[in-house]
Amino acid sequence: MAAKKMALIASKGTLDWGYPPYILASTAAALGWEVQVFFTFYGLQLLRKDLSAVKISPLANPAMPMPVPMPVLVQTLPGMESMATMMMKNKMKAKGVASLEELRHICIEAEVRLIACQMTVDLFEFDKNDFIPQAQFGGAATFLGFAGEADVSLYV
Amino acid sequence: MAAKKMALIASKGTLDWGYPPYILASTAAALGWEVQVFFTFYGLQLLRKDLSAVKISPLANPAMPMPVPMPVLVQTLPGMESMATMMMKNKMKAKGVASLEELRHICIEAEVRLIACQMTVDLFEFDKNDFIPQAQFGGAATFLGFAGEADVSLYV
Amino acid sequence: MAAKKMALIASKGTLDWGYPPYILASTAAALGWEVQVFFTFYGLQLLRKDLSAVKISPLANPAMPMPVPMPVLVQTLPGMESMATMMMKNKMKAKGVASLEELRHICIEAEVRLIACQMTVDLFEFDKNDFIPQAQFGGAATFLGFAGEADVSLYV
Repeated sequence: MAAKKMALIASKGTLDWGYPPYILASTAAALGWEVQVFFTFYGLQLLRKDLSAVKISPLANPAMPMPVPMPVLVQTLPGMESMATMMMKNKMKAKGVASLEELRHICIEAEVRLIACQMTVDLFEFDKNDFIPQAQFGGAATFLGFAGEADVSLYV
Repeated sequence: MAAKKMALIASKGTLDWGYPPYILASTAAALGWEVQVFFTFYGLQLLRKDLSAVKISPLANPAMPMPVPMPVLVQTLPGMESMATMMMKNKMKAKGVASLEELRHICIEAEVRLIACQMTVDLFEFDKNDFIPQAQFGGAATFLGFAGEADVSLYV
Repeated sequence: MAAKKMALIASKGTLDWGYPPYILASTAAALGWEVQVFFTFYGLQLLRKDLSAVKISPLANPAMPMPVPMPVLVQTLPGMESMATMMMKNKMKAKGVASLEELRHICIEAEVRLIACQMTVDLFEFDKNDFIPQAQFGGAATFLGFAGEADVSLYV
């Protein structure tokens, strides 16, 4: 029986929404599936060598369970994004959840194909040297060719 | 002919983004489809017995049609999330749209499987007693097993 | 061999999240695929004749690459949404990226079916005269009928 295939589109570049594509991709790869992830729009942030700028925003995610309830107005103050990001990272570490870097490494080891959307790279003038060397470059048409044959396609 | 299958991932926990998974699941179930919903990240909020904390945020959804135009700065004031939530709920009630609780009940009656992501439960230290008793617990691998056989898979 | 089919749900109504459904739909149509897009919730904004109110919000998209770093508090000031929208539009124009209107026109020429969610139209009291004449109206059940036969289904 042929291996299952999964096609993912990763369109968001925050710490929380960076997890789902890498978790889904690494899980599917562990099951022996063939996986391609197409990084587009803000999702391109997830292909940078340095992921330290990938943050979380309580404002953009009002359903985030915060350790301490915090009025919206307070969330707009300088430094709150960095604080929320630090708290989330510490919590994940304490709970033994892999970091984004670690999950990405697992994906690469498992031969998940990581494709950067060429149009977005051009639009936002990303420097290709900022990306990990395993990143490939392609367009939506090529990606749809794979998605059309995939068993599961998801837009994250 | 075998029944169609739909696999949903519900990742968001606000009032507006809580609707799509429950609407899609209940609609598919009414068509005789077999449906599983995997609640992960903020989506776990949608499995709580008490959904009164599920709110809407105009800040996080700049395209929301508001009854009264409201500057962003005003939206950051204390109480604005609760006000927007109340206005949305009243509007839905007036229009005869089912509440989240009602849609969830329809899904349960129709034997939609509601699965809580165990990893997220552990990470955010959710209390399982806060969830409805029909919630099951599982991981991404088990869910992908179902999604790989499904006719429609969507990440909401 | 029968043409591939793609079913899209467009649920968001901002400038950035308006692009993915129209880019994916026009790309798939160019490949000869049969495409339906179901516009629901805030996505209905994308069917308006006049798209000038479709904006972008740096607050709701913390991973947006901004030309100038900008504290969250500054982003809440009056006029910042309009400024970010103008900057994004100028950038796209300079880079030769098609506008939303142009992409939508390509979709219509390619006979992509654009379906407005009747329930959302009723809920938010949209005026059907504000929509482009090519918009059709339907419900989730009809859409799922198409999605159940599609090769790729995505929720954007």
